[in-house]
Amino acid sequence: MDIQAIVEQVWAELAERRGSGAVADYIPALARVDPRRFGIAVATPDGGFHCAGDADEPFSIQSISKVFVLALALDRHGARLFDKVGREPSGDPFNSIVQLERDQGIPRNPFINAGAIVTTDHLIDDRPVDEAVAELLALLRKMARDPGITIDGEVAMSESTAGDRNRSLAYFMASFGVLTNAVPDILDGYFQQCALALSCRNLAEAGLFLAFDGTDPVTGERVVSSARCRRINALMLTCGHYDNSGEFAYDVGFCGKSGVGGGILAVVPGRASIAVWSPGLGAGGTSLLGAAALKAIAERTGWSIFG
Amino acid sequence: MDIQAIVEQVWAELAERRGSGAVADYIPALARVDPRRFGIAVATPDGGFHCAGDADEPFSIQSISKVFVLALALDRHGARLFDKVGREPSGDPFNSIVQLERDQGIPRNPFINAGAIVTTDHLIDDRPVDEAVAELLALLRKMARDPGITIDGEVAMSESTAGDRNRSLAYFMASFGVLTNAVPDILDGYFQQCALALSCRNLAEAGLFLAFDGTDPVTGERVVSSARCRRINALMLTCGHYDNSGEFAYDVGFCGKSGVGGGILAVVPGRASIAVWSPGLGAGGTSLLGAAALKAIAERTGWSIFG
Amino acid sequence: MDIQAIVEQVWAELAERRGSGAVADYIPALARVDPRRFGIAVATPDGGFHCAGDADEPFSIQSISKVFVLALALDRHGARLFDKVGREPSGDPFNSIVQLERDQGIPRNPFINAGAIVTTDHLIDDRPVDEAVAELLALLRKMARDPGITIDGEVAMSESTAGDRNRSLAYFMASFGVLTNAVPDILDGYFQQCALALSCRNLAEAGLFLAFDGTDPVTGERVVSSARCRRINALMLTCGHYDNSGEFAYDVGFCGKSGVGGGILAVVPGRASIAVWSPGLGAGGTSLLGAAALKAIAERTGWSIFG
Amino acid sequence: MDIQAIVEQVWAELAERRGSGAVADYIPALARVDPRRFGIAVATPDGGFHCAGDADEPFSIQSISKVFVLALALDRHGARLFDKVGREPSGDPFNSIVQLERDQGIPRNPFINAGAIVTTDHLIDDRPVDEAVAELLALLRKMARDPGITIDGEVAMSESTAGDRNRSLAYFMASFGVLTNAVPDILDGYFQQCALALSCRNLAEAGLFLAFDGTDPVTGERVVSSARCRRINALMLTCGHYDNSGEFAYDVGFCGKSGVGGGILAVVPGRASIAVWSPGLGAGGTSLLGAAALKAIAERTGWSIFG
Repeated sequence: MDIQAIVEQVWAELAERRGSGAVADYIPALARVDPRRFGIAVATPDGGFHCAGDADEPFSIQSISKVFVLALALDRHGARLFDKVGREPSGDPFNSIVQLERDQGIPRNPFINAGAIVTTDHLIDDRPVDEAVAELLALLRKMARDPGITIDGEVAMSESTAGDRNRSLAYFMASFGVLTNAVPDILDGYFQQCALALSCRNLAEAGLFLAFDGTDPVTGERVVSSARCRRINALMLTCGHYDNSGEFAYDVGFCGKSGVGGGILAVVPGRASIAVWSPGLGAGGTSLLGAAALKAIAERTGWSIFG
Repeated sequence: MDIQAIVEQVWAELAERRGSGAVADYIPALARVDPRRFGIAVATPDGGFHCAGDADEPFSIQSISKVFVLALALDRHGARLFDKVGREPSGDPFNSIVQLERDQGIPRNPFINAGAIVTTDHLIDDRPVDEAVAELLALLRKMARDPGITIDGEVAMSESTAGDRNRSLAYFMASFGVLTNAVPDILDGYFQQCALALSCRNLAEAGLFLAFDGTDPVTGERVVSSARCRRINALMLTCGHYDNSGEFAYDVGFCGKSGVGGGILAVVPGRASIAVWSPGLGAGGTSLLGAAALKAIAERTGWSIFG
Repeated sequence: MDIQAIVEQVWAELAERRGSGAVADYIPALARVDPRRFGIAVATPDGGFHCAGDADEPFSIQSISKVFVLALALDRHGARLFDKVGREPSGDPFNSIVQLERDQGIPRNPFINAGAIVTTDHLIDDRPVDEAVAELLALLRKMARDPGITIDGEVAMSESTAGDRNRSLAYFMASFGVLTNAVPDILDGYFQQCALALSCRNLAEAGLFLAFDGTDPVTGERVVSSARCRRINALMLTCGHYDNSGEFAYDVGFCGKSGVGGGILAVVPGRASIAVWSPGLGAGGTSLLGAAALKAIAERTGWSIFG
Repeated sequence: MDIQAIVEQVWAELAERRGSGAVADYIPALARVDPRRFGIAVATPDGGFHCAGDADEPFSIQSISKVFVLALALDRHGARLFDKVGREPSGDPFNSIVQLERDQGIPRNPFINAGAIVTTDHLIDDRPVDEAVAELLALLRKMARDPGITIDGEVAMSESTAGDRNRSLAYFMASFGVLTNAVPDILDGYFQQCALALSCRNLAEAGLFLAFDGTDPVTGERVVSSARCRRINALMLTCGHYDNSGEFAYDVGFCGKSGVGGGILAVVPGRASIAVWSPGLGAGGTSLLGAAALKAIAERTGWSIFG
């Protein structure tokens, strides 16, 4: 069966379960998203797309942005970044501070909140915050070939209003000397990146280089080195879904990164980049239908990286 | 460059670092192993081998046996096994009891000690312990095509003598009602499996079915289902190396399982099964030279599962 | 108002709440105790008693025995005992193993289970277990002036049957080299001491020396030195009630030790020794009515050690 | 021997150890204090003083102010305060955030930093911060009968500069909805109270009401109710010295509160109030010589509350 048929079939089979799971409600802008939204987009190296459902409606990608921030921070600082953030799955909920205390302020990996605060600090480097955010936005617009991608100002503002836990994490790391920039500046950048709004189509296209050795397969342009690309993928596999990364690897077998907005970016090396979106979350904070869709696609395509 | 040349080259480049790292010394039989031993064996689906160094000398595979116990326990109980053991990386050292307390006696995954005690309990099931151990030994002898594989009785005895931490873990789980058999029986089985002695050649051959969808590529015989095979591989990738599983995935990009005896079994889906052995361990408890050898092989073969 | 009148009044006021709280049910012998039992006994230095309710019915004193084991272990080993057990409140539930892991197998204080396993190991020393238990029994019989005090064999057996958590704690400490005797021997002694059966009258009389500088005020015989007596009292105050020791100090203001059988021994330096018993426990594992009775007695006598 | 002679003798015996211990160095104003300062002051109910050494030199009382803030917050809110802060010893270092995570943002007691941030929030209530701080300062000036007591502005500023850990604690609690006022306002009040400068004489006199049922024994004026006074004393006994409160109770047997500036306020119900100061701290963060002096005074006066 071809990939377009698989995408449509999977969407149709799962569509009746739309609305299940719990929509994130810690900020109003997320809480009021229609829980029945459900989109799938598969981007292939020939520049093609295979979509179903609400694949063109922008949503708040939230933590998925951590992947692109990591790519840029690694590009700017190289492996020295890992002096300040680990590469191990966390074993604790995504915003746990216990681990930070045990490890003297060094977060376990770049995909938990504390770790992404560290990569954001590195992305900002010695620049004004807005310049760093502009670089991130420019990367996404270019890779997704869509100059209309924006940051949702209301979401960014709400993130800040609801951001006391992240403030606590940041000041905690600052007390260990882990951060370079001032905490309010870093969080400004952090809250903005959480508020990026992309459609499934945008997201799949923007992530395509990760499936092709760090090179955009459509233009042939290199974004990150081949070795770095493999390593970002490894981090997505082991740490991409908070405290249920193991479950996702076990069930789906793709490299992936979830966001509490209900999006998931999945990377299948040598094959495709896939974005799914459905706002209802499972117990682990990952989109219920999104994970189910990726599992079904993995089974029907035989694309699992585990054989 | 062909794989034989790569294996020899990697061995030769690393050979001068033999003796680095710390040999496990919690039992005498491990402490007195020559720290300069270093072997590599790659098994390919055509039944061929590519070896270097001490590839034919048996060593204590220790925790690597957890992979085969998991395969048998899953075969016996199916997914119900996961009611009693999780599938998430642990984020704590391999013998941590903190996690067990938080999770009401359910270990995070089958590859930490507590988790392997649970899979051993399932492997024993309602049989005498020795019958369960005999099944495990028979599987390894058959898959490795070597009837001479044995359990090192001295090591098993020493494991028991030094086994108070494992006793504590087992009684802790028993206090939550997680275990079915009596703790001393389960530990008897557990200590025996830790004492299995295999060479790199044995181990690579025994693990070959995991790289080929659960089927022995030489005989065509199915050992586990295709789906189950992928899932065992996913667990090795996310949880196979105690608290540095993320590092191994990041650096090497193969599914793997380490033992404190200095062995590592690596599975490369669709390509090969690789066993390395060098007794000196790094900070995370994984063979220093072993991990370095696998990293070098991954780079030169381009076999990383991450692209 | 005289003390006899206070005791009777407090008993009468609380009697209607008999049966509230949760009776410990982890062993059958405790689970089937009549939840409406309620006794109070105050022993004064003139040899007098002031009792109310079921003050003469023996009950399982459980953890209250830890006080007497500590007194004997200190007598045997002096302050060297504190190389193996701390003197700090635990901040974790009474059977927590998390703290043990953080502190390399050294329990926080002698009144949590792990700590009492350490003091039991010291009480046994280089003797047969039964000799050590006999010394403890002899002390209680002598101090309470009642040769009929015994160990309830059924309770001791049940403790052992339900003792996996304590086994886990003991093997955990053994793995750090904290214990001298074999774990099964230590636990044998530990389970027996938990099964001591005393009445409120027995218990109040047995504890009288702690209120009088370590000397039995009736006979004038010294049991422990004055300094050691103060220190045992300090430990009761700070650590005597698992995770609600602070609450007890705050509310009652007496040195005290609770048991899950519903008994509490309270020591009021220079004044009296008080034992209360009511099987229903509050959230913290301390007798609900027992704590309420002590609080009322403290208020009406003005005996709080805090002014 | 009379108390003046004891004070002088204890001072003289310990004076040769001046300079031992580690002076707090997290802010410059503390780091540059002369480590050989050593003062003792005992205030008795007749209005008398027994002093030795540097008893009249003001020092930064740091966490000792938590006692007075608690008294005022309790006066303002009564027992409802304890909906937002516990009464149990912490078992974790004074600035641990692990406990806060486990207990959903509710600190264990009012004497760890997080707990004092809660009591400060209650002291501020619906007033401007400076009004609350002024009330605290007025209480201390009145009780110590010294209108010259002030807040050291340089210390307050330094506390704020070095205050990222406290910021983290405050935002962490705010994320659980535990705090009423804005975090920066609460911390402003908190940092000011840490910077109060009192001499031993001031401090002993200011704390005298705690030793006399909540009433200033010199003027007869009631400061807090008798019951509340006993409870503040109980909290000092069980929680007054971070992670070595049990040790202090065991060794000294007075209610007390330490500060990292090297001061300790000790309360002996019915007898006296004692302040000691020596900047060198022991491993637990309590003044080495201060604790030794109190232990010696307790032994020679026989004033231990434990008999």
